Amino acid sequence: MDHYIKKMKAKPFDIDADKLVAILKMADAKELGLFPLDRVEIRCPRTKKKTACVVDITKTMLKEGEIGIFTDVKEKLGLKKGESVMVQAVPSPESVRFIKKKLDGRTLIEDEIREIVRDLGDNKISEIEAASFVSAVYIHGFSLGEIVAMTKALANDGLKIQFKDEIVLDKHCIGGTNGRTTMIIVPMIAAAGFKIPKTSSRSITSSAGTADAMEVLANVSLSIGQIKKITKKVGGVIAWGGALELAPVDDKIIQIEHPLSLDPPGQIIASVMAKKASVGAKYIVIDLPVGPDAKIHSRDRAEEMAKKFIAVGKKLGMRVQSVITDGSEPVGRAFGPALEAKHVMEILEGKRFDNLAQKSCELAGVLLEMAHKVKKDKGTDYAKELLTSGKALEKMKEMINAQGKKVLSSLEIGEAKFKKVVKANISGEIGGINLKKCANLAKTAGAPADKKSGVVLLVKVGDTIKRGQPLFQIHAENKRKMELAMRFASKNKIVETEKIILEKFT
Amino acid sequence: MDHYIKKMKAKPFDIDADKLVAILKMADAKELGLFPLDRVEIRCPRTKKKTACVVDITKTMLKEGEIGIFTDVKEKLGLKKGESVMVQAVPSPESVRFIKKKLDGRTLIEDEIREIVRDLGDNKISEIEAASFVSAVYIHGFSLGEIVAMTKALANDGLKIQFKDEIVLDKHCIGGTNGRTTMIIVPMIAAAGFKIPKTSSRSITSSAGTADAMEVLANVSLSIGQIKKITKKVGGVIAWGGALELAPVDDKIIQIEHPLSLDPPGQIIASVMAKKASVGAKYIVIDLPVGPDAKIHSRDRAEEMAKKFIAVGKKLGMRVQSVITDGSEPVGRAFGPALEAKHVMEILEGKRFDNLAQKSCELAGVLLEMAHKVKKDKGTDYAKELLTSGKALEKMKEMINAQGKKVLSSLEIGEAKFKKVVKANISGEIGGINLKKCANLAKTAGAPADKKSGVVLLVKVGDTIKRGQPLFQIHAENKRKMELAMRFASKNKIVETEKIILEKFT
Repeated sequence: MDHYIKKMKAKPFDIDADKLVAILKMADAKELGLFPLDRVEIRCPRTKKKTACVVDITKTMLKEGEIGIFTDVKEKLGLKKGESVMVQAVPSPESVRFIKKKLDGRTLIEDEIREIVRDLGDNKISEIEAASFVSAVYIHGFSLGEIVAMTKALANDGLKIQFKDEIVLDKHCIGGTNGRTTMIIVPMIAAAGFKIPKTSSRSITSSAGTADAMEVLANVSLSIGQIKKITKKVGGVIAWGGALELAPVDDKIIQIEHPLSLDPPGQIIASVMAKKASVGAKYIVIDLPVGPDAKIHSRDRAEEMAKKFIAVGKKLGMRVQSVITDGSEPVGRAFGPALEAKHVMEILEGKRFDNLAQKSCELAGVLLEMAHKVKKDKGTDYAKELLTSGKALEKMKEMINAQGKKVLSSLEIGEAKFKKVVKANISGEIGGINLKKCANLAKTAGAPADKKSGVVLLVKVGDTIKRGQPLFQIHAENKRKMELAMRFASKNKIVETEKIILEKFT
Repeated sequence: MDHYIKKMKAKPFDIDADKLVAILKMADAKELGLFPLDRVEIRCPRTKKKTACVVDITKTMLKEGEIGIFTDVKEKLGLKKGESVMVQAVPSPESVRFIKKKLDGRTLIEDEIREIVRDLGDNKISEIEAASFVSAVYIHGFSLGEIVAMTKALANDGLKIQFKDEIVLDKHCIGGTNGRTTMIIVPMIAAAGFKIPKTSSRSITSSAGTADAMEVLANVSLSIGQIKKITKKVGGVIAWGGALELAPVDDKIIQIEHPLSLDPPGQIIASVMAKKASVGAKYIVIDLPVGPDAKIHSRDRAEEMAKKFIAVGKKLGMRVQSVITDGSEPVGRAFGPALEAKHVMEILEGKRFDNLAQKSCELAGVLLEMAHKVKKDKGTDYAKELLTSGKALEKMKEMINAQGKKVLSSLEIGEAKFKKVVKANISGEIGGINLKKCANLAKTAGAPADKKSGVVLLVKVGDTIKRGQPLFQIHAENKRKMELAMRFASKNKIVETEKIILEKFT
């Protein structure tokens, strides 16, 4: 269908929306044969540049004959203020048809998934269309072939970090809560002679992400060039992955998934494996914590994902081992960037050995066995040796120095201005610690934005305690946030105390 | 969870978005514990007004400590320029949980659907969440109970037109193409002594809607008060439903469905029945055209919908009869507002009797039988009598005068500036007329924005024609659009000519 082309006056609005949107008066839209959310192509006759936009209708902000555009579109067209543009209706990109196909429950082929990923990257797919895609994947799931195609498409769409003739190892944890195994495993693996350029996220819904905690010790906003250089020199690096463009479309998909917490396993696997493929990882360990407050609630679901990770890895030439871990208890005892960083450094410094240290050694052990550093069943011991010998700590210090040092020791990590201890108001045995509430308490206290804020647990599950004994300590940088956190703590059962006498007969 | 409240400076942008959006710098979002697409509550201490908004993140357009708001939010809070507001994170409305429930394939209860509809109406649900809801309904469908609940929620959310002690009849056609039966049926039913306050749509994807065609004869932008007054006095009215707020949320849902053409039958039924409930209709005929270019492609699907319409009507105290009609051929011969209006007037004036006239009489007949005006099987004859006696024409003239007359006769309807006839380049029999292409041809020529533009068919299926004989005529108001239409006509088979000799043996 050929479309009528209308000359219109561009009216730029200083809105940086990351969306290709054009705003029209209803009368103009009608003349162009457009309905809200249809697409127009806008062409600038002077620069000869053009772009497709999604149409929004306004009642008030434009005159007839004007087309409102945001900063992204203005820059894309190289427009000057008040300049005229040529506007015409254009069909939706083909990828929208593939989204409909997925909504109809049909399996997408590799080319179709690649097209969807490319158009998401180019902002050619509207938020509504992207939300429908994510919903369709959530409801219908992904076949193994679709996961592989999505992984490839996400990885190929972004930049890459490649190391020639080097063995790259990697690890990933799916939806754990606290405990920064990464900050212990990476120096261990690097100390063992392998490359491990780890990109990590900042917190989304928890009280700290690995990047937030590592940032207490060193700079994590590194370029791809810096990551490559540090990895070559030191072996390991822990950088914030957010601005690296390793799999930029993945971040867009995660953003669309967020409001309804739509995280279909197939998309999670593709998202993780794409980032591993981007750094050229050869051996990967995937940690799947199972617990009521973890992302994965049941053992069955964890097993299913464990197997899919391995299968996808095989198709892409990456060796994967998945491990299922106990996600029902805190790993370590700290919640909040600085508190978690301090806890990690104390483990590396040999001052502390707890379930976080043990878990890190076991996971590092799996990687060391996969990469043939040690014989089967010897991995954990080797990892512990790296810890007790101080080699892991030395490596961590090298990493910190290479990334841009902030502090080199647990003793140098400062503490928050305000601290309050919450005590048991009943004697008994600790029956459980609510991980989600711990994280929410730490967030209420200001984490992760206030780096030093958070929570330190002073008991663990199974401890027998007396009334008045300290349960946990809240750290906050700001009086108001401490008040809010104390209120949250008094209203919520962070630590559950079971009475030992459950019932009394008289 | 209690949230930290931050004092921020409101920066209004002159954007009329119909969305409750707040824009923040990433650092501020982080301090408030927010991720893009989360929600904040903004409160103005002076006006004491507050509203929840969805969070968008900007890199460039704000300074730290500023919160960007659009016109809707500014007006809702009664804000002055540069005024400070109190901002805090708040959870999503409960309705978002119900949307997730639907995504998980569970059936919603009446209260949950009412909550979703209310929050859609109040702009509390973001586009992404709305798109997920529409996708979930598309994939999982609606149970009968859900359709009934959606119908009630949509109708109760809007305004109503009620007539005491009067019998209100109504009709609806699901996704037909051309042919304005409404403009013939409404005067007939009113002439028979019933009330029929018909609200119609403008074209969305076709070359004309009933409101577009009626607007050629009379004013259709009527208020609810005017519709009520005219109905009381004349019996019938044909108004544009778009601005009436009879079921405003329905329009929002239709807008979200549009980009991916998601029109789940359950939502269509609720949408139609809500509008019927809003005008207090007691007897309703639903026309379900089936054909390759109609909305409903198969007889089975039409039957399923036919039954559901009746069942939903029963639950809501409305008597419905559904009829399946042939949607494979044009009804009448005109495409485009003025051409269709002229065709209708010629039928009412007794100058023409074709399949559009016959269909209108049959549908009116069903209504007249349902409302006990005539005995069973006598409805069509009675309707024809209303036509031939001139009573329907008289009633139409009364309606036109009451609504705000433009023209009273087919002879007064003007024609477009440019007209071109397309002739057959082969002799044979007309095997088919592609309705979608007819509509697209009329749209290319400028319909429905250019009221006089469109297409008039000069042949019908089964006609035997000779090479050089006129097939159809294109009407356009503008030379460029005529050129585009002629190009479209030369590239597309609008009319399919079958050779009578299919195969020749020599």
